[in-house]
Amino acid sequence: MSPERPYFGPAYEYEIDPEFRPSYLNLERDVPSLPVEPGIVVRPVLGKRLNISFIYFEPQTVAPVHQHREEQIGTVLEGSLQFELAGQQRILRRGDVYVIPPNVPHGAVTSEEGCITLDVFSPPREGLRELVERSGNQGKGRISS
Amino acid sequence: MSPERPYFGPAYEYEIDPEFRPSYLNLERDVPSLPVEPGIVVRPVLGKRLNISFIYFEPQTVAPVHQHREEQIGTVLEGSLQFELAGQQRILRRGDVYVIPPNVPHGAVTSEEGCITLDVFSPPREGLRELVERSGNQGKGRISS
Repeated sequence: MSPERPYFGPAYEYEIDPEFRPSYLNLERDVPSLPVEPGIVVRPVLGKRLNISFIYFEPQTVAPVHQHREEQIGTVLEGSLQFELAGQQRILRRGDVYVIPPNVPHGAVTSEEGCITLDVFSPPREGLRELVERSGNQGKGRISS
Repeated sequence: MSPERPYFGPAYEYEIDPEFRPSYLNLERDVPSLPVEPGIVVRPVLGKRLNISFIYFEPQTVAPVHQHREEQIGTVLEGSLQFELAGQQRILRRGDVYVIPPNVPHGAVTSEEGCITLDVFSPPREGLRELVERSGNQGKGRISS
């Protein structure tokens, strides 16, 4: 890391968006579980430019091949799944990452074991904010200011 | 999930950015380890609108309080750390998430045990692309097209 641009750089003058509060959240306590397909539940945390989603797959589950305009990067946290990305299939486990540019078709299936992935989207995945707001429990973890 | 807007929606007409290839990557095999502070190593995977960074903290390590213009969301994958966000300190473990709007000061320290976090930035964290390109091994995991 060059001394001219340290990763943890010095303080600078800035303005903070009053509408966008920093927060601590605990997945179990503060983040809604949203069923999106049989055997698939999503726990999303929303920012403004991006969102992260913890996705829980039961064994023998199919996330059909689909596409969306959001950029996506994901990784396997637990278990395994067979992923399909731009027609290429791979078995993925912890330590594997997939990069999905906008509009590129992808999907996944689990077999004997379940899987937990962490998927990140920018901009936030369409429809997710609405679903979270409807579930009514985003924001419990906010820092009081 | 309403049938009008299924999470895994139908195919549609689209264009794919020829400069931005989908890829599978394995952290150990394909992603460079970049030291950023004593006791802290970052493995970043870069997209265009966002990046994810696996951050490895040794015990007794300090990530000084700092700020940046990128939006950040992070989560603990292993171990624990004491986080500071907008002046509020918390001990975080697996299952905890922090949302850091642009410019909000934050930092972390580890004590007896190390910690692995996954941190996500949009836009990609400044300086990271340059560091990755200099390290020379991003892109090994690309799907041949």
